[in-house]
Amino acid sequence: MTIRAGIINVTGFAGLEAARLLNSHPEAELVAATGRSLAGQYLGDAFPHLQAVFGKTKITETIDVDVDIILSAMPTSESAKLCAPFCNVGTKVIDIAADFRLKNAEEYKTWFGTEHPHPELLPSAVYGLPEINAEKIKKASLIANPGCYPTATILALAPAIASGVINAPIIVDAKSGISGAGRGTGGGFNYSEVNEDVSAYRIGNHNHQPEMVQELSALQKDTAEKLKISFTPHLVPMTRGIHATCYAPLNSKISQHAIDDLYSTYYEKSPFTYATTKPPHTKTTLGSNLCLVHPVIDERNDILVVSSVLDNLMKGAAGQAIQNLNLLFDLPQASGLPNTSIWP
Amino acid sequence: MTIRAGIINVTGFAGLEAARLLNSHPEAELVAATGRSLAGQYLGDAFPHLQAVFGKTKITETIDVDVDIILSAMPTSESAKLCAPFCNVGTKVIDIAADFRLKNAEEYKTWFGTEHPHPELLPSAVYGLPEINAEKIKKASLIANPGCYPTATILALAPAIASGVINAPIIVDAKSGISGAGRGTGGGFNYSEVNEDVSAYRIGNHNHQPEMVQELSALQKDTAEKLKISFTPHLVPMTRGIHATCYAPLNSKISQHAIDDLYSTYYEKSPFTYATTKPPHTKTTLGSNLCLVHPVIDERNDILVVSSVLDNLMKGAAGQAIQNLNLLFDLPQASGLPNTSIWP
Amino acid sequence: MTIRAGIINVTGFAGLEAARLLNSHPEAELVAATGRSLAGQYLGDAFPHLQAVFGKTKITETIDVDVDIILSAMPTSESAKLCAPFCNVGTKVIDIAADFRLKNAEEYKTWFGTEHPHPELLPSAVYGLPEINAEKIKKASLIANPGCYPTATILALAPAIASGVINAPIIVDAKSGISGAGRGTGGGFNYSEVNEDVSAYRIGNHNHQPEMVQELSALQKDTAEKLKISFTPHLVPMTRGIHATCYAPLNSKISQHAIDDLYSTYYEKSPFTYATTKPPHTKTTLGSNLCLVHPVIDERNDILVVSSVLDNLMKGAAGQAIQNLNLLFDLPQASGLPNTSIWP
Amino acid sequence: MTIRAGIINVTGFAGLEAARLLNSHPEAELVAATGRSLAGQYLGDAFPHLQAVFGKTKITETIDVDVDIILSAMPTSESAKLCAPFCNVGTKVIDIAADFRLKNAEEYKTWFGTEHPHPELLPSAVYGLPEINAEKIKKASLIANPGCYPTATILALAPAIASGVINAPIIVDAKSGISGAGRGTGGGFNYSEVNEDVSAYRIGNHNHQPEMVQELSALQKDTAEKLKISFTPHLVPMTRGIHATCYAPLNSKISQHAIDDLYSTYYEKSPFTYATTKPPHTKTTLGSNLCLVHPVIDERNDILVVSSVLDNLMKGAAGQAIQNLNLLFDLPQASGLPNTSIWP
Repeated sequence: MTIRAGIINVTGFAGLEAARLLNSHPEAELVAATGRSLAGQYLGDAFPHLQAVFGKTKITETIDVDVDIILSAMPTSESAKLCAPFCNVGTKVIDIAADFRLKNAEEYKTWFGTEHPHPELLPSAVYGLPEINAEKIKKASLIANPGCYPTATILALAPAIASGVINAPIIVDAKSGISGAGRGTGGGFNYSEVNEDVSAYRIGNHNHQPEMVQELSALQKDTAEKLKISFTPHLVPMTRGIHATCYAPLNSKISQHAIDDLYSTYYEKSPFTYATTKPPHTKTTLGSNLCLVHPVIDERNDILVVSSVLDNLMKGAAGQAIQNLNLLFDLPQASGLPNTSIWP
Repeated sequence: MTIRAGIINVTGFAGLEAARLLNSHPEAELVAATGRSLAGQYLGDAFPHLQAVFGKTKITETIDVDVDIILSAMPTSESAKLCAPFCNVGTKVIDIAADFRLKNAEEYKTWFGTEHPHPELLPSAVYGLPEINAEKIKKASLIANPGCYPTATILALAPAIASGVINAPIIVDAKSGISGAGRGTGGGFNYSEVNEDVSAYRIGNHNHQPEMVQELSALQKDTAEKLKISFTPHLVPMTRGIHATCYAPLNSKISQHAIDDLYSTYYEKSPFTYATTKPPHTKTTLGSNLCLVHPVIDERNDILVVSSVLDNLMKGAAGQAIQNLNLLFDLPQASGLPNTSIWP
Repeated sequence: MTIRAGIINVTGFAGLEAARLLNSHPEAELVAATGRSLAGQYLGDAFPHLQAVFGKTKITETIDVDVDIILSAMPTSESAKLCAPFCNVGTKVIDIAADFRLKNAEEYKTWFGTEHPHPELLPSAVYGLPEINAEKIKKASLIANPGCYPTATILALAPAIASGVINAPIIVDAKSGISGAGRGTGGGFNYSEVNEDVSAYRIGNHNHQPEMVQELSALQKDTAEKLKISFTPHLVPMTRGIHATCYAPLNSKISQHAIDDLYSTYYEKSPFTYATTKPPHTKTTLGSNLCLVHPVIDERNDILVVSSVLDNLMKGAAGQAIQNLNLLFDLPQASGLPNTSIWP
Repeated sequence: MTIRAGIINVTGFAGLEAARLLNSHPEAELVAATGRSLAGQYLGDAFPHLQAVFGKTKITETIDVDVDIILSAMPTSESAKLCAPFCNVGTKVIDIAADFRLKNAEEYKTWFGTEHPHPELLPSAVYGLPEINAEKIKKASLIANPGCYPTATILALAPAIASGVINAPIIVDAKSGISGAGRGTGGGFNYSEVNEDVSAYRIGNHNHQPEMVQELSALQKDTAEKLKISFTPHLVPMTRGIHATCYAPLNSKISQHAIDDLYSTYYEKSPFTYATTKPPHTKTTLGSNLCLVHPVIDERNDILVVSSVLDNLMKGAAGQAIQNLNLLFDLPQASGLPNTSIWP
């Protein structure tokens, strides 16, 4: 029996990518897709890259048909409001926005500047990072799909933190393609202004940082020490891709060989996350659900440097959402998801 | 029974794309892949975007196993030499290079500057453009896979030429992403020199022009008039994509509505080529086998302007090769080929 | 005595470029710069690339000080309204917008969809293309600064049309960087949507076309024949640069050598426009006031193909405005203008 | 009297930029330019962006005329060999390569893998960073022009280190445009492979790192503590620009206001280096000699985060060389150097 999926806000980049992936999924299909500004239009007309498959799928204002699962790609805070009714009737929900990631509603308010609209749902939400939480995800109904920066960062650091080889403070310097900023065009996302440009933003103060701290803290061997992460994102002139470079002091001497082993063992069962022995390229992940992780010992300074790369709209958003959908319905994690990328 | 495919020169962009497509093909598999400079390496090591699927596939010097079909992505002239032995023993061959496209060995010499290595094979070769030659392709053994510029141009002009609404001379102004120039790095393809740059090359003198003339002439209603095409390609700073803009004088008044009908009818059975009523974007085809064609009447000047777009490594090379493979083995044309693209 | 210049709408790309050029001009200085949305801010704060030189120049709502010349970079129609008062008191005005380019107010209405706000000023306006109109410009008070597409097109075709070697219809296929679309961010100019993309727009129907026809008609040797131009612009993923490729049937046989001579002779006194014997690159003009023009005979088809390149914000807008300013004040044309470009 | 300058290896990106800058310098001129592969050609023919000014300047094999100063842009190790004869006869020399930056010939061998060809010249070489060494530079004859990464890093960290507010280990995460890799096209610098891609290289092990340590150590207040820097560079898909993000633990609490003051005071006399209170963009420096430096206190983690941006071919290479030339000849530092950039 085919899984009937609905997408809330199909007209953003993450929603569109989820629609594309559902089209090629062997066990699921898109049965409803909302998008207020374009409601009434055919999805394939509004977005010609989907014309061949969704030429007759109408964008609607609300989800009006029965669905087995909701994928919400609404902006933060609005997302929780639209997900809640589905949660309340037992429909499975994957929130691609940030509304159910932080366990603590107070912390949510601190970072997102608004009261959490549905704090009563927070306890049941499971953080949807399959490499770490696969078993919990299988039993959940409400999935908080991780952010793109946290996915890259947590996968880069999890093996080292779980094994206790590094200390705080950890520096995370992330470089993101522009699609991470969404389809909005205000605030300097005009092509001419961001092309041939690199800049940092929200230095040490991005609202994806607490999500990293929360999830990595849960993996710490020695929970006495408080995990500290200084996170600074940068925009680089490309459409897709995140490169997170993470720096942490080593607890004690460890060889490059040992750290390579640690990482490859940690991810040996993961269908999409690989440890590499060469610096990974974001382009290696374009259009796929892959995440490549590369640990290096800087011996001169006793620092572990871990690079990780992924496609922010795939493993960093819609691809991971489909991976979670697979887990929720007891399908193979990789079902319907590409593990080769468009190169060059 | 799975079709066993071998790729000659897997290490170029077209060969790599063919390998990627074979991996996700439901009825075919890659059983051998040659590449002299990297022979002995694993395909997935040399090209990490294929690591998850070809981590244990060795690049070899020659095709050493039984195959049902050869896809050759060797450079021109070398390709014919390597294909000939397979043709001679009855193995099906798709030549992605230009060696079997021109029917006339003299013309080949004129444009490619060398004697054709196997003129005896030319009569049996079929020009592999499924929108026009599907029935012939099904019965063939040797397929001349069309060039990227000719595919975009012929699909843009075929409906108009076949119906006799335009005259010569036809101007074809094509804009290509840099991957069309291959993986070679000489001659100014250093990133810094081609980024933020547009330039024309081989103005009115590109060796893909005779292929356009040959194939479009065969479609002419009035064969008395000699078809003339002035073709100028340009490099634009993007990786993939071709945009061909074709200009031809109209024979007589025809309405925009009539020309739209003409085009949509011509391609109504094609799984990948669509007539559009809005200017198409190359990005709409990225990573897919789509070709979008958009005819416009310039009423002030009685000129038909047809834009067409495709991904030069897909519909312009490897994707079309797989479409031909499907025809050769009586599979649905779209088997294993994406008809949605990576966007944005 | 320093020339006191005011810029209307300094906050658009062309206005900013004019400000930058005035800063390094030996005989002129910026004394006032308007910009409604940012009025009250320092120019160097709002635009950090000018911080070192305009950190203390306030953006104002209106021009409140005495000026010797106005450069207006307002949008079409609004520009004429703001220029008129200056014209009426005898201040020299250079309109970088399109308001004074078409001689015929009816034609203006047809193409721009609005009544011309000041048709009484049209007779005195001189089309500011120094390569052709230098003497007229010197005596004028109101300069219609040419559009970026027309500059590239007219300079590409002028020698051939003036000498009568080509016929209509002429095809002009232009490729423009995204900055030509201005700083507005609606309509799909989000980085992610235009990066890695080429598309045509306003096919055969762009409102820069009549300006080309008007100015090139004035150069025709045989004025009996009506000049016809089919013009189609394309957006390519780069910030600056225009590449115009122009195709016209030859009247009679002419050698490549003769056409090269014709072009180099035509421009031998021009400080910025050069005939080249190799295909020119847009990047060769980045940040300079250069225009390179390259004529090629397509012998197979008896067609003249002329490529021309320029920086749309320099020779296509602000650079040309400064060149006109120099003529208006009897300075050397090249005063304060770069003739080398940023490469790579 | 005009300063007569010769460039060794004008055909690389840095050499070309030096030639362009000399052309517009009011007190200096290019009198000789070597380049083995293109010797005999006119500089303006080989590089059309210089055609208008160097159309008649021949590239030669060696410097055959009298010069007052040599700018060498040869690759490392070759540069010292070619500079030495000029040093020995008392001609001023600016080495844009890395040969005279490290004081210690042993360290040079460690990082560059070859014996230093002229260790006897090392004691007299002055590290040419005008913000720090202006007085020494004025009295020197041999200038080691700093690397692009070290310039960005040292200018980012100098105020903090000189005032003693930070501790080691310092993390430096740098993002560079592709022109930093030079004109060579091997090793994956083909446009198609680096476009839409970010990757790290030489993680924790780049040969610009010791230069940073050497120069910053000299500024330390407390010389007891050994300065440690973990440096990792990344390539991002743009032509020019470096963004260095530097992270260092704070010694003690300091307010954002105090750190802003510290930085703006430190650079208040510098004509090109500015402290900013907003995250700087590399694009703000394109084509200019500017360096913008932006310190931020990450209060949650007691870490100082300093971003700095510059154009790697200008302040990071040729622009800085001209700034050093100005100091060597007692000219104003900013003579002939742009302090506004090409934007957008």
